[in-house]
Amino acid sequence: MRRALDAARAVPRTLPNPPVGCVLLDPDGRELAVGVHRGAGTPHAEVDALSQAGEAARGATAVVTLEPCDHTGRTGPCTQALIAAGVAEVVYAVDDPHPIGAGGAQTLLSAGVKVTTGVLTEEAKELLAPWATRYWLGRPFVTWKYAATLDGLSAAPDGTSKWITGPEARRDVQQFRAECDAIMAGTGAVLADDPRLTVRDADDMPLPYEQQPMRIVVGETPIPNYYRVFDRVAPTLLIQTREPHDVLAKLMENDIHHVWLEGGPRLAGAFWNAGLIDRVIGYIAPAMLGSGRAALEGEATTLADLRPITITDLRQIGPDIRIVGTPGPPPREAMGKGEGY
Amino acid sequence: MRRALDAARAVPRTLPNPPVGCVLLDPDGRELAVGVHRGAGTPHAEVDALSQAGEAARGATAVVTLEPCDHTGRTGPCTQALIAAGVAEVVYAVDDPHPIGAGGAQTLLSAGVKVTTGVLTEEAKELLAPWATRYWLGRPFVTWKYAATLDGLSAAPDGTSKWITGPEARRDVQQFRAECDAIMAGTGAVLADDPRLTVRDADDMPLPYEQQPMRIVVGETPIPNYYRVFDRVAPTLLIQTREPHDVLAKLMENDIHHVWLEGGPRLAGAFWNAGLIDRVIGYIAPAMLGSGRAALEGEATTLADLRPITITDLRQIGPDIRIVGTPGPPPREAMGKGEGY
Repeated sequence: MRRALDAARAVPRTLPNPPVGCVLLDPDGRELAVGVHRGAGTPHAEVDALSQAGEAARGATAVVTLEPCDHTGRTGPCTQALIAAGVAEVVYAVDDPHPIGAGGAQTLLSAGVKVTTGVLTEEAKELLAPWATRYWLGRPFVTWKYAATLDGLSAAPDGTSKWITGPEARRDVQQFRAECDAIMAGTGAVLADDPRLTVRDADDMPLPYEQQPMRIVVGETPIPNYYRVFDRVAPTLLIQTREPHDVLAKLMENDIHHVWLEGGPRLAGAFWNAGLIDRVIGYIAPAMLGSGRAALEGEATTLADLRPITITDLRQIGPDIRIVGTPGPPPREAMGKGEGY
Repeated sequence: MRRALDAARAVPRTLPNPPVGCVLLDPDGRELAVGVHRGAGTPHAEVDALSQAGEAARGATAVVTLEPCDHTGRTGPCTQALIAAGVAEVVYAVDDPHPIGAGGAQTLLSAGVKVTTGVLTEEAKELLAPWATRYWLGRPFVTWKYAATLDGLSAAPDGTSKWITGPEARRDVQQFRAECDAIMAGTGAVLADDPRLTVRDADDMPLPYEQQPMRIVVGETPIPNYYRVFDRVAPTLLIQTREPHDVLAKLMENDIHHVWLEGGPRLAGAFWNAGLIDRVIGYIAPAMLGSGRAALEGEATTLADLRPITITDLRQIGPDIRIVGTPGPPPREAMGKGEGY
């Protein structure tokens, strides 16, 4: 299963489809093939693996990160492909949360295929979350990206803010953006910085229009039409509210799975306070500014309001620090008790 | 030389003496002995190595991180010990900056010993800086420690601030404090938090009085005598000014080499703005507060005021992040130019 997860993880973008990996094992547990799904219009991971294995798939075990789908979309149902190939057993990590795709396990069982689930489920759920959160929670997955100094400031008092972090961090951001299907900023940030909110390659050239995430501008202040978010590089959606739940409902209507939130401490603060941020990616410039605008405008009043983040990755990107983490709900127990420093 | 530096580095505290390592090599370059200085009243590194090597030191090469001393203090001059032992060559990294100890190289040369310098000098200077800055720059070495959330906040709006970071980070702080000979905080921080400003062991018990760094309380607000900085665990010095240069002059008078600055964003800001911080140790709790008091009160007005820090160490300490860095003077070139995000 770990092998299948790694294979799925290696594909940079599958949206609007899920990342899925499939390893075929012969009855002795030897690897026959590793299949992966590469995005809409390409074979599902199971079919990819089966086509590599050919006749050897008969009697094999398919280890899949997601329950095999049971419906005919652009490709046929994977359940039927597995049954037809004579696969004896299917091991999968996560139930298919998609209302149409689900039911695969039942179909396989009815056809006499042995089915096992619950293997590395937590890890697989983490991988699937950017795609599956809309089915699990009825809202898109939200990644909040910010860049700040060590003292948590994203702009100087005069508002100057561009490129606090170095070129390596900016390149890194482009790779993350490319995994999303929407890039969102508040009207305040758009008016202040005139960002492009597009995905660019190493030469700063935008990807083709059809590969660009949808640009989302949130807020009630009008943006003049000569701002760059209105250029023809990518589609743009204006959402005239700042209420995070309303924003996410609009994104659901527009089939967004994974939104990249960046730009605007007020907008970030509104999502943060509503507990609607699933992942934080912070780029920290190793520098101090001393005074300026915070990256986040929150509502804490006392230390008990502290919201912890579980760090999943910490590394240096060029001269900067990148922190990837998952916000968690409970405040720390020890906080504010005991002896002083 | 690297071996000598590593040996010197392994000693947690030598103040008021310098950390020094010495490796003795026979004429074929084989290691005869590794000596190290363990603090006032113990043998210098050269003597430590010579006593291990005994007669084998005749004709050997001594590789020392600091120019051998040439004066009689609590121990005799190392130059004479090296000459008496018949050492043929001395290789050292950094000139002795101490006005009394210097002149060792000249003495060795006069006695017919070959002398080489300039080996790994930068690395050795970095190791020596907490001891040597008072001779190089005429002021103590200043380490600024702060703890903050990811959004750079050290206290909630209501002032609650104790223990933003976890127990592992607090233990780590004790180990760093033990390397210093002064622990400094502003009166505001003392009044707000009633800190102990002492070095404690793993059971939170203070080290003996004579091993405690001097506690320094800086500022003009009177502190009632029942505050813990006035207990009998460690000596305490009040400095009634907030002007950093005046504070450092007072510390020089009190024979302080290395001061640990912590507590008080105003005091830290004053030192920061004056360019008087030599090392930054930041403990970052992976959490967001959203609003509160910053770790540093600086004077930036525009992004060009950004003060970069070169990171020398980045790691996780328990759930927290620790960043060790050296503040650098020049603002980054690329800042504020070019295209938007």
